[in-house]
Amino acid sequence: MRQNEAPGASARLASFVAAVSWANVAAQSHEAKRSILNFFATALGSAHDPAVTSALRALSPFGGAATSAIIGRPERLDALGAAFVNAISANLLDFDDTHLDTIIHPAAPVAAPVLALSEARGYCGRDVITAFILGVDVECRIGNAVSPGHYARGWHITSTCGVFGAAAACARLLGLPADGIANAIGLAASQSAGIVENLPSAAKNVSVGNAARNGLFAALLAEQGYAAAPRAIEGTLGWARAMGDEPDLGRMLGDLGTSWEIAKNTYKPYPAGIVFHAVIDACFKLRARLDGRVDAIAAITVHGSALLLARGDRVVRNERDARVSIHHCAACALLLGLAGVPEFSEVAVVRPDIVDLRQKVTAALDASLPDGAARVDVQLRSGERLEETVMAARGSLADPLSDADIEAKLRACLRLGGADWDGQGVIDAVWRLDTLTELSGLMNAPRSHRSPEVIAL
Amino acid sequence: MRQNEAPGASARLASFVAAVSWANVAAQSHEAKRSILNFFATALGSAHDPAVTSALRALSPFGGAATSAIIGRPERLDALGAAFVNAISANLLDFDDTHLDTIIHPAAPVAAPVLALSEARGYCGRDVITAFILGVDVECRIGNAVSPGHYARGWHITSTCGVFGAAAACARLLGLPADGIANAIGLAASQSAGIVENLPSAAKNVSVGNAARNGLFAALLAEQGYAAAPRAIEGTLGWARAMGDEPDLGRMLGDLGTSWEIAKNTYKPYPAGIVFHAVIDACFKLRARLDGRVDAIAAITVHGSALLLARGDRVVRNERDARVSIHHCAACALLLGLAGVPEFSEVAVVRPDIVDLRQKVTAALDASLPDGAARVDVQLRSGERLEETVMAARGSLADPLSDADIEAKLRACLRLGGADWDGQGVIDAVWRLDTLTELSGLMNAPRSHRSPEVIAL
Repeated sequence: MRQNEAPGASARLASFVAAVSWANVAAQSHEAKRSILNFFATALGSAHDPAVTSALRALSPFGGAATSAIIGRPERLDALGAAFVNAISANLLDFDDTHLDTIIHPAAPVAAPVLALSEARGYCGRDVITAFILGVDVECRIGNAVSPGHYARGWHITSTCGVFGAAAACARLLGLPADGIANAIGLAASQSAGIVENLPSAAKNVSVGNAARNGLFAALLAEQGYAAAPRAIEGTLGWARAMGDEPDLGRMLGDLGTSWEIAKNTYKPYPAGIVFHAVIDACFKLRARLDGRVDAIAAITVHGSALLLARGDRVVRNERDARVSIHHCAACALLLGLAGVPEFSEVAVVRPDIVDLRQKVTAALDASLPDGAARVDVQLRSGERLEETVMAARGSLADPLSDADIEAKLRACLRLGGADWDGQGVIDAVWRLDTLTELSGLMNAPRSHRSPEVIAL
Repeated sequence: MRQNEAPGASARLASFVAAVSWANVAAQSHEAKRSILNFFATALGSAHDPAVTSALRALSPFGGAATSAIIGRPERLDALGAAFVNAISANLLDFDDTHLDTIIHPAAPVAAPVLALSEARGYCGRDVITAFILGVDVECRIGNAVSPGHYARGWHITSTCGVFGAAAACARLLGLPADGIANAIGLAASQSAGIVENLPSAAKNVSVGNAARNGLFAALLAEQGYAAAPRAIEGTLGWARAMGDEPDLGRMLGDLGTSWEIAKNTYKPYPAGIVFHAVIDACFKLRARLDGRVDAIAAITVHGSALLLARGDRVVRNERDARVSIHHCAACALLLGLAGVPEFSEVAVVRPDIVDLRQKVTAALDASLPDGAARVDVQLRSGERLEETVMAARGSLADPLSDADIEAKLRACLRLGGADWDGQGVIDAVWRLDTLTELSGLMNAPRSHRSPEVIAL
């Protein structure tokens, strides 16, 4: 067989997506539920953010039959609109899940359209879990094939790769045959967009929402017979090379069905950039040792890799800066012993004692530390020095959040986001997702409208 | 002022778009009408193509109030849906307009959302023309800044730059202030997508339709307060560099308001790749000299630039191949004296006398010929040789289609496309567009539903 007659990457991914059964993915289903629970947590937390409300307002004249819930809100939209809005709220604070090999946030672009489409067409919980696992696999495998150059070059990888995961997952849900799934993946290649330059703005929300919406749209077009080029991803004038990378097809296609990307997913305890989590954990340990003597601190030095310094050694002007600031993370953790959503709010950014402590923080390179680790050194006025090193932050693969941690995160997010939804109802429904015959109990969980029977789900 | 405090490209384009008045663009309005007439011609020609029907079917469950016409069809959709579908039909056969410096097809991604939004919100003809001229300017100027590398690298420039033109034009129509227009342009940067690898498939339609739809969406989001990074286009991690180019800001921003990109627009007499037009014209001249002796041809040699050979020296398997084949273009022009839509149909591709003549064609490099020129050399069995050279093809800036030619193109497309619309009504309304207070006469021109009064428009 000549090289150019071998099946393309879209076809090979699609054959896998079409062939997988529940038995093949059942062992991954608990991690999928954890990812989906974390997705609900962050979506509920941001449900009433002005960016979500504005997106809803912009879309409201353009919706069809309102089949699908807006998570944490009373409004409903058609599946394309709900996919767009729910992906935005899930990702808004960068508090969603992280695939550490690529820094993709896998769930937002995949879970949002999978849930919206499943509500609209009446798919069951196992369909949702299977499609979600496969979508995450496709999105992260394509991300693997172009990492780390892709993100470094300016592509917002959650958006640019998320659309592939959404397309594959939705095409699977729709029951398309392998060539239809391949077409959906290829159609996603012509819709892949989103730039890092726009991350500090609402334009980031648009590319994340579009990844979800356009992946579903790709599947719906493939269902209507729309086709794509067989080498849309890896062709000479295809997605990967136009984006600037020689794709590594081995990383994309190796060990399909035996190595699962969902198993590499992680969940954040803190709504800050992932590389700052070790800084926070080290400061929590130091705070315990300081035993209230925060006023006695003369200087704080945070040591980390070049990546940590490149991302986080910055002036803090607003909430977005705070979430990616070495100085702010260290100050909140030492001063308050907290690093939750309120600690990265506008109020916290300008709070005088936090501002004061931020100014005592210096970032220093320690090339011997791996990415994701940190050493924090506190010098007291007395001359005493305390030091803590964290190699694996809480929430990393080496120290993952427990199921109870993710439940607690959901309750905290729900409280902060002010959504009138029944958090326990969502938690219970997600853990039982593989037994649900339809999603109304999960997606219609407003506290005030729930009957006791539905709660009993 | 420090370099990074100077206004960004989005802001400079937006200030211009916000400030321009009808008096500033009136001199360009006739060319705008020609572009819009050509847009209607190609949209009417493809209105019933299966790709259009499938797109409509995929979108039909997801539409809001049906404010906007689908050109050449009885259906209506909301403005986002109509923008998507009308951009597809206008561009489907690559028979739409061409901005030769970039090979952008300017009208489809800009006119489609401008007309759909204007119908929905009741804007007048002068609003349409002004927004269209400005949208074409923005889209082609951004294209200028990254050409020729952008297209060569695998980006479908009509899609990737079209979204900027759509965003700027629609933001202007919505009456947004300059900073709102800048945000719309920046929001477009996070939605810019579409790859060349997918051009021989329906995935091309999706990126063209999305350019129109997502540009309008960017403007609607900006209207709701969505912002973008000030340097979304030219920033270090912005659109141009992520896409692979150092943007030439001089080509983007020079002579704003004095040099207009719409003045560089061209219209195709033949539904073939633009570089094949000189081949067709040369063969028409040879056919006239042959005076019926096509059977006497022994061999045909088409000489042209490296670009012509790279694009067009190919085996013809289907309609898409035929439209970019040196061999097919030469054979139809010599044999039939025609190169219209029927000559690039599936029937023509397999017609035995065309197949025979195609096999007599050889392509040969003549590096002395510029792109867009061709020399055709016919050798008869008698040994006689005839030769014709065309330096500026019909439809090029040096030999533009007349207004009457574009009208005739519209009538021919309408006939072939089988749309039940009143072509003369469209033609009359476009020429009078600057006097129309609303668009119902233009956008509601189905033959069977038109009253005499409406026809009298």
